[in-house]
Amino acid sequence: MTPVEQTTTPATIAGIETPAAIVDLGRLAANLDRAASYATSHGIALRPHVKTHKSPVIAREQLRRGAAGLTCATVREVEVMSDVTNDVLFAYPPVGGPRLRRLLSAPAKVRLTVSLDSEAAIDALAATAAAARRTVRVYVEADVGMHRVGVTSADRAVALARRVAGKPSLEYAGLAFYAGHIRQPPAAQDERLARLNDELGAILDALSAAGLTPTVVSGGSTPTLWRTHELPAVTEIRPGTYVYNDRATADLGVCALDDCALTVLATVVSTAVPDQAVVDAGTKALGREPLDDASHAGFGAVADHPDVVVSRMSEEHGILDLRSTSWRPATGDLVRIIPNHVCVVVHLNDVVYGVRGENVETTWPVAARGRT
Amino acid sequence: MTPVEQTTTPATIAGIETPAAIVDLGRLAANLDRAASYATSHGIALRPHVKTHKSPVIAREQLRRGAAGLTCATVREVEVMSDVTNDVLFAYPPVGGPRLRRLLSAPAKVRLTVSLDSEAAIDALAATAAAARRTVRVYVEADVGMHRVGVTSADRAVALARRVAGKPSLEYAGLAFYAGHIRQPPAAQDERLARLNDELGAILDALSAAGLTPTVVSGGSTPTLWRTHELPAVTEIRPGTYVYNDRATADLGVCALDDCALTVLATVVSTAVPDQAVVDAGTKALGREPLDDASHAGFGAVADHPDVVVSRMSEEHGILDLRSTSWRPATGDLVRIIPNHVCVVVHLNDVVYGVRGENVETTWPVAARGRT
Repeated sequence: MTPVEQTTTPATIAGIETPAAIVDLGRLAANLDRAASYATSHGIALRPHVKTHKSPVIAREQLRRGAAGLTCATVREVEVMSDVTNDVLFAYPPVGGPRLRRLLSAPAKVRLTVSLDSEAAIDALAATAAAARRTVRVYVEADVGMHRVGVTSADRAVALARRVAGKPSLEYAGLAFYAGHIRQPPAAQDERLARLNDELGAILDALSAAGLTPTVVSGGSTPTLWRTHELPAVTEIRPGTYVYNDRATADLGVCALDDCALTVLATVVSTAVPDQAVVDAGTKALGREPLDDASHAGFGAVADHPDVVVSRMSEEHGILDLRSTSWRPATGDLVRIIPNHVCVVVHLNDVVYGVRGENVETTWPVAARGRT
Repeated sequence: MTPVEQTTTPATIAGIETPAAIVDLGRLAANLDRAASYATSHGIALRPHVKTHKSPVIAREQLRRGAAGLTCATVREVEVMSDVTNDVLFAYPPVGGPRLRRLLSAPAKVRLTVSLDSEAAIDALAATAAAARRTVRVYVEADVGMHRVGVTSADRAVALARRVAGKPSLEYAGLAFYAGHIRQPPAAQDERLARLNDELGAILDALSAAGLTPTVVSGGSTPTLWRTHELPAVTEIRPGTYVYNDRATADLGVCALDDCALTVLATVVSTAVPDQAVVDAGTKALGREPLDDASHAGFGAVADHPDVVVSRMSEEHGILDLRSTSWRPATGDLVRIIPNHVCVVVHLNDVVYGVRGENVETTWPVAARGRT
């Protein structure tokens, strides 16, 4: 085996072996700034979810702009992010012995908070925390309509909060929710947000009546990001996708297509079959993520020709449908593809390239990718 | 950062941090044996595609059972597989400077064959091979109905074969095709296979008439594997998925569900929302791959309860729909999920665990995962 190491960063994108994830550094900075200043101006704590970028390089930029801490979904993310923050929320059920033991092995300097939704999770976390001689903060997770995780009634929220408060190794710190079901364009979210305010109000009333008023109410997603101030109970938000944005976010009207900072650089490898061009970005580079609106077909769009989409894929092939365009790329041409769902794309890459125009300025590893 | 290294392999699957890819070693061996003995008994060269396993550990087992060489789709795969074979087919258009230079950096002991479908690819490959002072064998790729890559007429096949034959650094070695569009159950492939025989016959007649009879006719896929002997022109097959099989392969009737060797071990992390259980295998562990028959819903099925499917996913959450079963797993339970498309799952893992029943016997890295 002769590993051909890329010892130097290529000067321009023409030197990058495709498929590769490239990030427009100007757009990235603008995305980071926009969310940071929104949170600051509304007095909301921003605790970004690192699942989108999985990189301490980006996390450091978020923290430098005032982020209150970081949110993680895997123990690998917790380990890697402990290099750049002392304040981590593990927004995932702390269930399973290996996961729990590894979570509690985070450096002692890290203030750990965990969101959970069951007695089983509380009891196991309390025991493992006690054995590790540390105190873990807990948010009780409520389901507010997404029907994924979270207790489904105010009574259950009270029961779990009381159980947490009774554990010496745990500290009851707040209420968490994720309104992932709100995927309307921001201007069309009125009804959903009103209902969310009602649901949160009912849970908070019950907690307060039980003497368990939460210090923190943690919510937030990228689609609801810019309307968070209309949820007065919310003190903390955990958006992830906003750093890069993607075609799905733009399609919802939450950002413009020009705010998408990460694209997949691909090479046209075949034009043998008429009315299509084949690029080297397939499911192993783009994932197979649909848009909410299925009438917008395709698994990604060409940045310079957003009407041209990746209409079919194999693992290493993406088929650009050219039937409705006069554009005909040549074999060997480079194209940038805006992925439907950027979080999945980042997870498929070991390295990301930071570019301005055609110039490659830097690269960084996707350090928290993978499990071990 | 305190990396918690898993320095020893856990004795049983209960010690594995989930989600993780686990392989039933008995089923794997049976799958390898079955294809090897089919190929041997019919006198067809088996050149397995390594994209499914991306591991020299499995490749070695394929070669030990008589595989004539290996098939790769990425240059990373070529590099890694050069450790275990001297005969590699790069079944991907050799287009793009960085890809081409890295391909030609494969160890000199490796006999390289490349399939391609354009004059641009031929000219660039010939120049790069000449600069590297090596001879590269070439298969001309024909489209036989999948409409992905490949020339779409016999005339074009002749033109490319002639161009290859005229390049001193290239050796015209054969015709390649991939009948990925044949995804009927084997018993229902009669009409498609007859048409394929006709199409191959027309191309081969044209090549022979031009004095360019190919030495090798390379085809093969897992769905058509067991009927290859009914394609008399085919001398070599390149199936990949057969080593592990998956739910899609079983759904097509190409294997039984019990022949699926790789499952995703997952932990039930929440049962808070009624009539469902949430496992820690979402799109970042399973991909989001549909079955051919959309009426079979879901992105994977529980091995012990194949009627229970992963009906919805987030990145780290898979929702098991329990509405049509009385089975109610508890928070903390381990389940094995048969993925719809195993090749995508392997690409999402750095390590695979080899098990027999509950016992973990071995682990191996997915060494050719990723790009660098």
